[in-house]
Amino acid sequence: MKYTKMFGKTSKADKKYESRSVEYLVRGGFVDQVMAGGYTFLPLGLRVMHKIEGIVRDEMDKIGSELLMPAIVPTEFWKQTGRFDSIDVLFKVVGANEVSLARNNAEYVLNPTHEDVIAPTAKKFNQSYKDFPFAVYQIQTKFRNEVRPKTGLLRTREFRMKDLYSFHTSAEDLKAYYEVAREAYTNVYKRLGIGDDTYYTAASGGDFTEDFSHEFQTRLETGEDLVFRSQSTNECFNKEIAPSKAVMYEQDSQMKEMEEVFGEGIIGVDDLCKFMGIKPHQTTKTLIFQSEKGVIVAAVRGDYDVNELKLKKVAGVKKLELATEDTVEKVTGAKLGYAGIVNLPGDVMVFLDDSIENLVNFETGGNKTHYHMANVNWGRDVQKPEKFYDIKIAKEGDLYPVTNEVYEVFKASEVGNIFPLNTKFTDAVGYTFTDVDGKQKQVYMGSYGIGISRLIGVIAEKFNDEFGIVWPINIAPFQVHMLTLGSDSAYAKAEEIYKMLQEKGVEVLWDDRKGASAGEKFSDADLIGIPVRVLVSDKSLEKGGVEIKARKSKEVQLIELDKVLDSITAMLKAS
Amino acid sequence: MKYTKMFGKTSKADKKYESRSVEYLVRGGFVDQVMAGGYTFLPLGLRVMHKIEGIVRDEMDKIGSELLMPAIVPTEFWKQTGRFDSIDVLFKVVGANEVSLARNNAEYVLNPTHEDVIAPTAKKFNQSYKDFPFAVYQIQTKFRNEVRPKTGLLRTREFRMKDLYSFHTSAEDLKAYYEVAREAYTNVYKRLGIGDDTYYTAASGGDFTEDFSHEFQTRLETGEDLVFRSQSTNECFNKEIAPSKAVMYEQDSQMKEMEEVFGEGIIGVDDLCKFMGIKPHQTTKTLIFQSEKGVIVAAVRGDYDVNELKLKKVAGVKKLELATEDTVEKVTGAKLGYAGIVNLPGDVMVFLDDSIENLVNFETGGNKTHYHMANVNWGRDVQKPEKFYDIKIAKEGDLYPVTNEVYEVFKASEVGNIFPLNTKFTDAVGYTFTDVDGKQKQVYMGSYGIGISRLIGVIAEKFNDEFGIVWPINIAPFQVHMLTLGSDSAYAKAEEIYKMLQEKGVEVLWDDRKGASAGEKFSDADLIGIPVRVLVSDKSLEKGGVEIKARKSKEVQLIELDKVLDSITAMLKAS
Repeated sequence: MKYTKMFGKTSKADKKYESRSVEYLVRGGFVDQVMAGGYTFLPLGLRVMHKIEGIVRDEMDKIGSELLMPAIVPTEFWKQTGRFDSIDVLFKVVGANEVSLARNNAEYVLNPTHEDVIAPTAKKFNQSYKDFPFAVYQIQTKFRNEVRPKTGLLRTREFRMKDLYSFHTSAEDLKAYYEVAREAYTNVYKRLGIGDDTYYTAASGGDFTEDFSHEFQTRLETGEDLVFRSQSTNECFNKEIAPSKAVMYEQDSQMKEMEEVFGEGIIGVDDLCKFMGIKPHQTTKTLIFQSEKGVIVAAVRGDYDVNELKLKKVAGVKKLELATEDTVEKVTGAKLGYAGIVNLPGDVMVFLDDSIENLVNFETGGNKTHYHMANVNWGRDVQKPEKFYDIKIAKEGDLYPVTNEVYEVFKASEVGNIFPLNTKFTDAVGYTFTDVDGKQKQVYMGSYGIGISRLIGVIAEKFNDEFGIVWPINIAPFQVHMLTLGSDSAYAKAEEIYKMLQEKGVEVLWDDRKGASAGEKFSDADLIGIPVRVLVSDKSLEKGGVEIKARKSKEVQLIELDKVLDSITAMLKAS
Repeated sequence: MKYTKMFGKTSKADKKYESRSVEYLVRGGFVDQVMAGGYTFLPLGLRVMHKIEGIVRDEMDKIGSELLMPAIVPTEFWKQTGRFDSIDVLFKVVGANEVSLARNNAEYVLNPTHEDVIAPTAKKFNQSYKDFPFAVYQIQTKFRNEVRPKTGLLRTREFRMKDLYSFHTSAEDLKAYYEVAREAYTNVYKRLGIGDDTYYTAASGGDFTEDFSHEFQTRLETGEDLVFRSQSTNECFNKEIAPSKAVMYEQDSQMKEMEEVFGEGIIGVDDLCKFMGIKPHQTTKTLIFQSEKGVIVAAVRGDYDVNELKLKKVAGVKKLELATEDTVEKVTGAKLGYAGIVNLPGDVMVFLDDSIENLVNFETGGNKTHYHMANVNWGRDVQKPEKFYDIKIAKEGDLYPVTNEVYEVFKASEVGNIFPLNTKFTDAVGYTFTDVDGKQKQVYMGSYGIGISRLIGVIAEKFNDEFGIVWPINIAPFQVHMLTLGSDSAYAKAEEIYKMLQEKGVEVLWDDRKGASAGEKFSDADLIGIPVRVLVSDKSLEKGGVEIKARKSKEVQLIELDKVLDSITAMLKAS
């Protein structure tokens, strides 16, 4: 394509951008911001999106059939699953003005995802055990009422997504398919150029399931997630659920005498440590929660925080929230801020983190207003429980409990997720199947997403340098960026090469601007980030050819005219 | 693809369907209705849609660059162009529930079309005469608050559309591009298989322009539009604007005496003719309108109706509505229903249709309550105006005034439209360009649409028989529908053929169901309508091959196994 014929232009930096990817995607003419969390994909950006969609479609076609559900559906679909009032990103659609409302005043949901639509649709078609398992997917625009859209394409109110749904006659069959989907996803990331840096990562199952869900996390310095990876097993966990074992510090060999320390208003760990002259890992942090089963007391070492997801699982409760001041006073006998693990009433459930199991002479709250206990010891001052639990939020330096190795911890950005929904949605819509024995049985369902527009942002954020984006070959908007400088005869020669390359199936963006300077053309090429740059200039032609250079290299090669195609092909292969 | 692996199933007729296309698309498993005007495209239907999109994209890439604007935009875009309150199909988007509204209570427009978005976007990028002309397009889902969605995919609340917008420095350049777009559209319809039956048809320019817009109308017995075509020039006009000359009936050679006829309550043409013993073409029909320039009296021959679009143009007015009873009384001196062209006051504008120019002894309203005038004659009873106009709604039998030939009139369905918007939207958003002389000048804009999902409906409605759809080859969901009947060895042979065809790039739907009867498989193949059917059965194999049949033919050929590919290829070429 000729650059002068393509809509969209590069621009100079004119403000501080949220991130490099936002800057380069906007300045390179890939996207144009229409509102917070709303972008137009300009021709360059749309080409990248179509390439990603092509790869995703190709891999998904191997494991499901593609369909396309409506973006707007009657609210009943979401009421049937009980989600209409509870999903905080849900948008609805109504007539915009009086004339429109007078025509039709019905309301519709603008779907943020399609579990609530596919479950009743699948139910219409497939009700016999013979129909199972089956999977369908779509590539579609979704809508979410995000409060704070951020970092360009990473979180937007409107976005492209591939969503796949699978249906099964048993939890086991769902699990088996889960692995099939995992493999297909792995292939997608490989082809997108992020395979080596993308990790299958366990995450919270949310409200849907006690099982973990899984995220695909791509290593990224500016990523918003923290991944804990066992290098020996390659198992990865999202910070929110990573099982962890604390590093132990050397303990005193002798128990000291327990002391009650008066410390009015000394509440945070830092203040406490300064006040008492101890380290955070010599303290404990005790929190009081309310659950549907009653009050829960949880304590972790002072350099940790309580992980509520882990605590919920350990305690077997579904609802968990910090107790009110009243409850705290009732349970501890003290004002807020002085809770500890000594002298607790017998009718509360207590869960202690394994990070405090081996402490000697540790601190804990006094359960007495303004008081802290120092030099507390198991057995002597407080009864050692039969079992300690892992209820802490993992942090860098922690060990993976299974192998006892220190986790590799890195920042990452989520590029896909897969989710065992089990029977949550199929139950809600009354979707059962007739088994071989004639009986009606529950249908199991899984859901599998890839954020396609988000991926553009993640990949641009991952592959760039100080000059611009460095696109992986398979999703670059073009394969070759040809620049021309000099006289009309250079342009004429360039046009010949342009036509020849196009005939050979090479995708070329030809910067055919006559008004732009050499500097502008070079810096635009770097900004746009197409893998191979070809320069056709009076100078290069005098030297007998054209100059070619890979975007990711500094080396420029002079290539004779009759070897242009071969050299480009070789360079593309090496990309 | 194996039929057993594909989501969606055929079904038997279980109700009265709106039309054949609706019946076949639903029963064939192409679409699933989710609500009135809302459909899921099942895998078969989506394949057809993707093929149409591919053809449209290919032709549009030759005349513009593809981008993708957001479906939701801030309401300001539509307020700036003054359309937020007036467009009757406009939808808006708001948080669906309290939690969502608490996060963000902004409102957005869910775009039914994108003139209001592309104009300010284009303005951001292209402001110099050097940037012009340029054109951009997108293939996108649009939303319209239709009151009565109808005939399956023909009018829905959510639909796929290709919308292209072009920008120019002059009206002439816009006109030149208009022809370029026309040619691209013509190529699209040719490739879709409806080229011979699709006509470039002038239609009303609506509020945007005094020029005509143009529609592409595909001949279709069940079509909702009426096209008037001059066979000698191939010019076509939508009924709403078709210029027309009435067929003249023989007139009396002698003037009779004018009579005032008392006919209380005799108002409609039919009643009047019965009452007076005359024919409709001997009567006149007079209507009184109010316009921004004052009262307008318009009369046509009694067998016609007044065409308000034509009258507006002739009278040079923008607003035209039937006058109130009060005004009618004031102008004619009579109650409603007795208006005529005699004795009109001098201060009203009068426009008479050319169908009444040559009448002798005609009837007109008496402009006196309960009275009609019979045997009225020009010159003697009423002054003959200097000029008669064409202000009638054209009807079958009318002549094209330019060539004086009788129009060919046929029903048709609109499959695309192109629209000279001129400066309406660019003015609204203050989009000007800097010309070579340094001055700011107006930008001209055109808009060009193709309803992609609608096309599926139109084509299915056009190409079918009593058994199902007969898809044109280029947009059929698959090229070959292979059926297998009989023993496992027939299935094994079919699988071989299936794999061979796939390797050769032939798109095959293989009906590999073992539970379905021969009757089911044959009738499903007819219903789905793939161009070539291949039958692999014990019987055919005994005879030494497979049976192939074109969907549109009854002839079955037995083909030897080693000639299957060649025969299919030949049959596809002939399709």
